[in-house]
Amino acid sequence: MERVVRHFQEELDVLKSRLLEMGGLAEQRVRRAVQGLAEREHDLIESVLIGDEPINALQLEIDDRCLKLLALHQPMATDLRAVMAAVKINTDLERVGDLAVNIAEAAKRYAMHPPVKKLIDIPKMADIAQAMLRDALDSYVKRDMALARQVLHQDDSLDALKTQIFRELLSFMLKDPSTIEAALDLILVSRHLERIGDHATNVAEDVIFMVSARDVRHNAPEPDLQRN
Amino acid sequence: MERVVRHFQEELDVLKSRLLEMGGLAEQRVRRAVQGLAEREHDLIESVLIGDEPINALQLEIDDRCLKLLALHQPMATDLRAVMAAVKINTDLERVGDLAVNIAEAAKRYAMHPPVKKLIDIPKMADIAQAMLRDALDSYVKRDMALARQVLHQDDSLDALKTQIFRELLSFMLKDPSTIEAALDLILVSRHLERIGDHATNVAEDVIFMVSARDVRHNAPEPDLQRN
Repeated sequence: MERVVRHFQEELDVLKSRLLEMGGLAEQRVRRAVQGLAEREHDLIESVLIGDEPINALQLEIDDRCLKLLALHQPMATDLRAVMAAVKINTDLERVGDLAVNIAEAAKRYAMHPPVKKLIDIPKMADIAQAMLRDALDSYVKRDMALARQVLHQDDSLDALKTQIFRELLSFMLKDPSTIEAALDLILVSRHLERIGDHATNVAEDVIFMVSARDVRHNAPEPDLQRN
Repeated sequence: MERVVRHFQEELDVLKSRLLEMGGLAEQRVRRAVQGLAEREHDLIESVLIGDEPINALQLEIDDRCLKLLALHQPMATDLRAVMAAVKINTDLERVGDLAVNIAEAAKRYAMHPPVKKLIDIPKMADIAQAMLRDALDSYVKRDMALARQVLHQDDSLDALKTQIFRELLSFMLKDPSTIEAALDLILVSRHLERIGDHATNVAEDVIFMVSARDVRHNAPEPDLQRN
């Protein structure tokens, strides 16, 4: 039995490292897409548009690892919730990868128009969203509730920036309708970044649920999850 | 053993019926939000803004049922994948509920401006997205791959409508900048509806994976998932 338990923890560690790897890739793609947008770098934008294969492959691999962990080890309680959380986090990270593509698509269109303004708040949003994602994954790996809760708080600053960006771009459009198309793409980018923050929030919530099922999500007593 | 197996199938049936219930609620909220937008019905919009508690409660309940099914029955192969799919579908349905709130928020702002145009394509998008969601859930309950594949095809018509809506609203904004704010909200609504279609697509993909792991997602041989 002890041997099986150790084996499960080893497999879970591999799973965690693969999730971190996937998170790193997703973050890198978001960074490139936003840099491509801000600096109008065609090659950078194209690299995001064509490069989602590694993330998709990791998504399949991680799902497969989760299924095998459940099938071969039948984990209980916190371990079971850790695998469930991995299934969900995997989905969130894949979506972040998709959102990087959406940002790159907007960046490509944006580069066809004169720039509306120097971009400051959008890279700032990207920094916050990426930090949230990193912290959320860290909190998963370390089972760190305090860090997970911090991620939830950061979402507010992302929201505030999104609203500010919207108001500013709206005033540009109203003053000069020739900026409408370009400004629309910037608004869409800010929404994509907001959603990346939402995914980081989802991950953080999964971590809080994983570490302490009772406190956050329901009042069901822990023993319900023991094998009977 | 036979008794445990039957018990699992009964529990899985309850899980399915709860997912259908949640899907019905999500669909109803999308319908109300879009109707509230098109007919500028304040009460309908408000009912969506305040009414996401039942869906949130169902999400927790369904997650809990999935955990208990895994912990108490240790399902294998297709049954295991069915529970994994339920975990993911649950997340997708909750997001659809959130998107209904986003649509209602846009509808509330939109009602403060004169209407840009009579809305035809947005309700059409909503109809398609809702049908996709319904079909995707049906395909889960019936393990119907053909129906799941149909859902994937419907996504294209949603995309085409989104592009058409965008072009039309852009021309309104360029012609008459006083429509900018209202038109922006309609563009956002079309994006929210597109995302509802994406969630239906996710569900359909989960169903295809559940029914036939080999065909769609990887080449791992089925016996890998048997208990060893």
